[in-house]
Amino acid sequence: MPGNTLGQAFRITTFGESHGRALGVVIDGCPPGLELDEAYIQEELDKRRPGKALGETPRKEKDRVHLLSGVFEGRTTGTPIALLIYNEDARSSAYETIKDIFRPGHGDCTYFWKYGLRDWRGGGRSSGRETAARVAAGAVAKRLLETWNIEVHAYTVALGGVKASKRDLSFIYQNRLFCPDPEALSKMEERIKEIRAKGDSIGGVVEIVAQGVPAGLGEPVFDKLDADLAKALMSIGAVKGVEIGAGFAAAELLGSENNDEITPHGFKTNNAGGILAGISNGDEIICRVAVKPIPSISKEQETVDERLNPRKIKIGGRHDASAIPRIVPVCQAMVRLVLADHLLRQLSLSPFTKWTKYPFSEK
Amino acid sequence: MPGNTLGQAFRITTFGESHGRALGVVIDGCPPGLELDEAYIQEELDKRRPGKALGETPRKEKDRVHLLSGVFEGRTTGTPIALLIYNEDARSSAYETIKDIFRPGHGDCTYFWKYGLRDWRGGGRSSGRETAARVAAGAVAKRLLETWNIEVHAYTVALGGVKASKRDLSFIYQNRLFCPDPEALSKMEERIKEIRAKGDSIGGVVEIVAQGVPAGLGEPVFDKLDADLAKALMSIGAVKGVEIGAGFAAAELLGSENNDEITPHGFKTNNAGGILAGISNGDEIICRVAVKPIPSISKEQETVDERLNPRKIKIGGRHDASAIPRIVPVCQAMVRLVLADHLLRQLSLSPFTKWTKYPFSEK
Amino acid sequence: MPGNTLGQAFRITTFGESHGRALGVVIDGCPPGLELDEAYIQEELDKRRPGKALGETPRKEKDRVHLLSGVFEGRTTGTPIALLIYNEDARSSAYETIKDIFRPGHGDCTYFWKYGLRDWRGGGRSSGRETAARVAAGAVAKRLLETWNIEVHAYTVALGGVKASKRDLSFIYQNRLFCPDPEALSKMEERIKEIRAKGDSIGGVVEIVAQGVPAGLGEPVFDKLDADLAKALMSIGAVKGVEIGAGFAAAELLGSENNDEITPHGFKTNNAGGILAGISNGDEIICRVAVKPIPSISKEQETVDERLNPRKIKIGGRHDASAIPRIVPVCQAMVRLVLADHLLRQLSLSPFTKWTKYPFSEK
Amino acid sequence: MPGNTLGQAFRITTFGESHGRALGVVIDGCPPGLELDEAYIQEELDKRRPGKALGETPRKEKDRVHLLSGVFEGRTTGTPIALLIYNEDARSSAYETIKDIFRPGHGDCTYFWKYGLRDWRGGGRSSGRETAARVAAGAVAKRLLETWNIEVHAYTVALGGVKASKRDLSFIYQNRLFCPDPEALSKMEERIKEIRAKGDSIGGVVEIVAQGVPAGLGEPVFDKLDADLAKALMSIGAVKGVEIGAGFAAAELLGSENNDEITPHGFKTNNAGGILAGISNGDEIICRVAVKPIPSISKEQETVDERLNPRKIKIGGRHDASAIPRIVPVCQAMVRLVLADHLLRQLSLSPFTKWTKYPFSEK
Repeated sequence: MPGNTLGQAFRITTFGESHGRALGVVIDGCPPGLELDEAYIQEELDKRRPGKALGETPRKEKDRVHLLSGVFEGRTTGTPIALLIYNEDARSSAYETIKDIFRPGHGDCTYFWKYGLRDWRGGGRSSGRETAARVAAGAVAKRLLETWNIEVHAYTVALGGVKASKRDLSFIYQNRLFCPDPEALSKMEERIKEIRAKGDSIGGVVEIVAQGVPAGLGEPVFDKLDADLAKALMSIGAVKGVEIGAGFAAAELLGSENNDEITPHGFKTNNAGGILAGISNGDEIICRVAVKPIPSISKEQETVDERLNPRKIKIGGRHDASAIPRIVPVCQAMVRLVLADHLLRQLSLSPFTKWTKYPFSEK
Repeated sequence: MPGNTLGQAFRITTFGESHGRALGVVIDGCPPGLELDEAYIQEELDKRRPGKALGETPRKEKDRVHLLSGVFEGRTTGTPIALLIYNEDARSSAYETIKDIFRPGHGDCTYFWKYGLRDWRGGGRSSGRETAARVAAGAVAKRLLETWNIEVHAYTVALGGVKASKRDLSFIYQNRLFCPDPEALSKMEERIKEIRAKGDSIGGVVEIVAQGVPAGLGEPVFDKLDADLAKALMSIGAVKGVEIGAGFAAAELLGSENNDEITPHGFKTNNAGGILAGISNGDEIICRVAVKPIPSISKEQETVDERLNPRKIKIGGRHDASAIPRIVPVCQAMVRLVLADHLLRQLSLSPFTKWTKYPFSEK
Repeated sequence: MPGNTLGQAFRITTFGESHGRALGVVIDGCPPGLELDEAYIQEELDKRRPGKALGETPRKEKDRVHLLSGVFEGRTTGTPIALLIYNEDARSSAYETIKDIFRPGHGDCTYFWKYGLRDWRGGGRSSGRETAARVAAGAVAKRLLETWNIEVHAYTVALGGVKASKRDLSFIYQNRLFCPDPEALSKMEERIKEIRAKGDSIGGVVEIVAQGVPAGLGEPVFDKLDADLAKALMSIGAVKGVEIGAGFAAAELLGSENNDEITPHGFKTNNAGGILAGISNGDEIICRVAVKPIPSISKEQETVDERLNPRKIKIGGRHDASAIPRIVPVCQAMVRLVLADHLLRQLSLSPFTKWTKYPFSEK
Repeated sequence: MPGNTLGQAFRITTFGESHGRALGVVIDGCPPGLELDEAYIQEELDKRRPGKALGETPRKEKDRVHLLSGVFEGRTTGTPIALLIYNEDARSSAYETIKDIFRPGHGDCTYFWKYGLRDWRGGGRSSGRETAARVAAGAVAKRLLETWNIEVHAYTVALGGVKASKRDLSFIYQNRLFCPDPEALSKMEERIKEIRAKGDSIGGVVEIVAQGVPAGLGEPVFDKLDADLAKALMSIGAVKGVEIGAGFAAAELLGSENNDEITPHGFKTNNAGGILAGISNGDEIICRVAVKPIPSISKEQETVDERLNPRKIKIGGRHDASAIPRIVPVCQAMVRLVLADHLLRQLSLSPFTKWTKYPFSEK
């Protein structure tokens, strides 16, 4: 049973391999009447494009999006929106020499064991390139959320052990590491440079905040908003942990510390991360994900080939020192996709309730 | 759009409120021919029943399971299995005085804002009691996994800041805190006693390990095994974080440290937690969840009522000092449910592949 | 992969066997705030209860519904509604003698071949009794549809070759065959008596009409309203054909005859049966289903047992001469369930459109 | 909530409008290891391409399929297969003059009422051209079914009142009307010519037979094989009725006539159409669908525009006199898609049963 579809009401299905002909996504369930064109989607897609930043590779990925359906005279029609990105500049020959060897930390072995064969060119479907389709879909979700004044931002709060101690949302789009703290930025850049020189790689922590989310999104008991966020974020290849609000720190707090007291004008704190019992509470939604270091490194590693013969591998060629710069827009897209889905899900109930998007009184 | 169903091939739908007439679950997709009776399910259910342990309340919850369908002459028939637990001993009167007040840290406010009305008796559907149905369903998943020699264990690795430093799986079922470390146990018991005396509460960290899982489970790219585990675990009310393998620690490792090198006899380390690119790799699957402190405390807290009037609340009555003893079997059940689902999903592909459950050669 | 769930937004999951402990259904997605109690559901359930009508058996089926969850202080809460009907008066011993023999026209053989074992008591899950849960769920859908002034009626337009030539909706609930034509009724009763005397059985045709359905329900291209109606109706055991509007007769009409011309006040004809391109057009929705004769007959038939030995079978005991009187309320329930589902599905889109439920101008 | 996805285990999602940039489909869940290339798919697609047959229009639709993903070195990999067909030769200007007028019998009005706006070029998403994506997907299902020796054929058993009285499967691919009866063919051709001259249109009946289907496919109680076939076939725009086996005729048979008696070597008759209690019984599966006459006719008809002003319409330009020649391959594709889905669904259960694909003994 397949697993390339996400969402119930705002539903995406992605396809494509790293070095195949194209990547793409079909978005089914986008409401009619939204303004949409290729330029709007391209803008989001360009955010995950490698540039001159320290941690990124010099190759050119044009990643030009083609909008194939679902939009007429500049507006969505309610029918499926298909987005396509042709793969150009894919040089698979570099992979020929390791086509029967499993790269440690990659899905090479698990794809082979699961399916009995695999597309070894650039990791095939398990490549990080697959996330381009997610970001393209996320742009459409962004358009929908804008009509409800919902904003989602993602930024790097830790990179290779260097932590951001400030959150300046305006700063994050001014630097290629999406760092919200100008002081931490230079240390992060330093760290990447150092690791890159060693042929090694580092991970980090990305935080995502959603502002303006109405109270009431999330469907108990299994499709809780935090449960669906956890799934969407954990489905990103490099992510190994997800937390909401206080997250793992909550495990060490007392109830009297962790509870967010309530006033007529809102919550006094936000340890809940904007979600109570799986339903948004009108406060900021806050998630954090742990990103593992990129497994492709030029240091020698032990491994095996398809027949379980022991082998040594050093992964040469162009590789990023950290997934962070590319993964930040992907996290942002995934949160947007989940919110778009749950917004539409709640709308089908709202005619039966006295739904007030923001439950508190202004001060 | 509703959210009370989990799973694709092994699919459960739960229902019931804390103080309603009954809780239950329908399991659809359980294969035929498995031995099953009420006693087998009751045994799992009894694990989350409060006893004499320090952190637990003295009330009697009988939680007797009734097996209503899907089993004939002691074996599953392939048709839906309905399990029912009547609510006895539910004294709702204690809740009458706070029926229009939102308890901080609870879903009282979000249920009210989402649905426009709520069953205030004992938290209604948002009560932790809802998880009884999950544990009952998890027992059926356990039966299925046994036929494949898959075992799942859950245990408390941290409680109110006290950490277990040993993992003795045989010890976890000998103590009511499901602690795997005899030395840590007494400190944990001490910690609970102390917190309880203050009228406060504590959280902790639960680890779940799955042994004997064949390589190849998990459906890229969205229904990755880790993504579905994250969703299932985050859907438990008190859980605020989920991590796989090295988890958040991976964010601080180098690629050369985090990658699990491969030998003909298996992986040298298990930072991946048994999952690569969303597919099980044949190694132990390891997850950890952060459990927040129980929000019901007898300390006074600020809050509001349904009309946003400021109120004070002290939650009296019987309340646990920590969710840990009850939540451990729930985590275990959720992991079993996800594995059962993905096992069946993989089976529909396996006739087309040369599927070898354990890919490595014995030493 | 299981198949006991129907619907996306208004979703039901049924369980239970003919002679098991209970039948039931969980309804997930019912909006909050609807008035609901057991008496309301019981009234619908009583419609499929056998009485003194000619074609029905004298056994007593009490079929008392128990409402277990999802309703608080007389109103739905938005959480799952579980309905339970205990099986009483189930004498399985009559089936012991034929427990390894496949009754022709029944699912005995296919259940055995599919699952490798079967509950032979009264047909188990394949019994017509399973539809009691559908009717109970349909009562909840009825409640929802009432809030939108949507009415669904079902009636017998043919029985054993006797055809109704009049449609008097007020008459259908005054007779136990749900016949809309007083003249045809007596002939139908005659026909049943005659067939019953021979130990044989007859089928018929049921028509279902939905009035007051707003334009705009149905989701192209696969979840068209007519496609989902066809599935829901064909999923009733005895149904062998479904048609919408002119149905099979449309295959012999000219385009100029079959097209429904449009005026400012509505359509001039209704060959479309209220559905164009899978979306309701504001006119009456009309479906018809072909019901096969009940396969349990007392005439001798050739068959085989589980080991393929040739056997003869005469089915004694209490059996109806026609499924019609019981199947009419089931058809009504299934159409209600589909409409409730599509109503909620459309509501999630309606904030984005200028949705006018009735598009035409009054005369 | 969207409706452009069909199937659970073998799942397709289609997109595209008649005069948009492209049509396409993503197939998720196709097992790995199947041989597949564009030529194989193109062959199926060419069957619905208009040629020189009497009832078809002279325009050129190249409908060249592009295989974008999911195949590596000539074999499926288990990842999503995306198929794309660019729209060429789409002259939308012909539709400009009627862009605010609803064509009777078309989805123009219902799309407008549902979504608040519509792509009026060639019917947009409601065009019959949408079925090209279904046929492309059906070719992949065909490849899967071949590995199980399952064959599906579709043919015209009635056209404008002319009925085929013979079923010669070898003849159906030798004529452009897919007629299985050489004698009926010339009368059908005559009938089309006559209707075409009048500027009118005709419908017909298509029969689909599936041979070699193992016993055991179909998931009670809602996802019965016949229920899913009914949905899939009714989701084709022009279809107004679906029947299985004896179908509507069963409503007039006696139980003793309609029951298929069973022998050690198979069923004596096949009124069931190969399906009992929603599960295939090993016999031929037989469905028939009623196809309405094409609504685009050059005769003048009454209608309204978007503002409900009364208008007259004559639809000029290139239009087929009957949907039959194009719809036959679509019916064939839909049955293949349903069987592929249910085959994979059954495979996940089969390790738990003693599944024998063909239950009978050879004579």
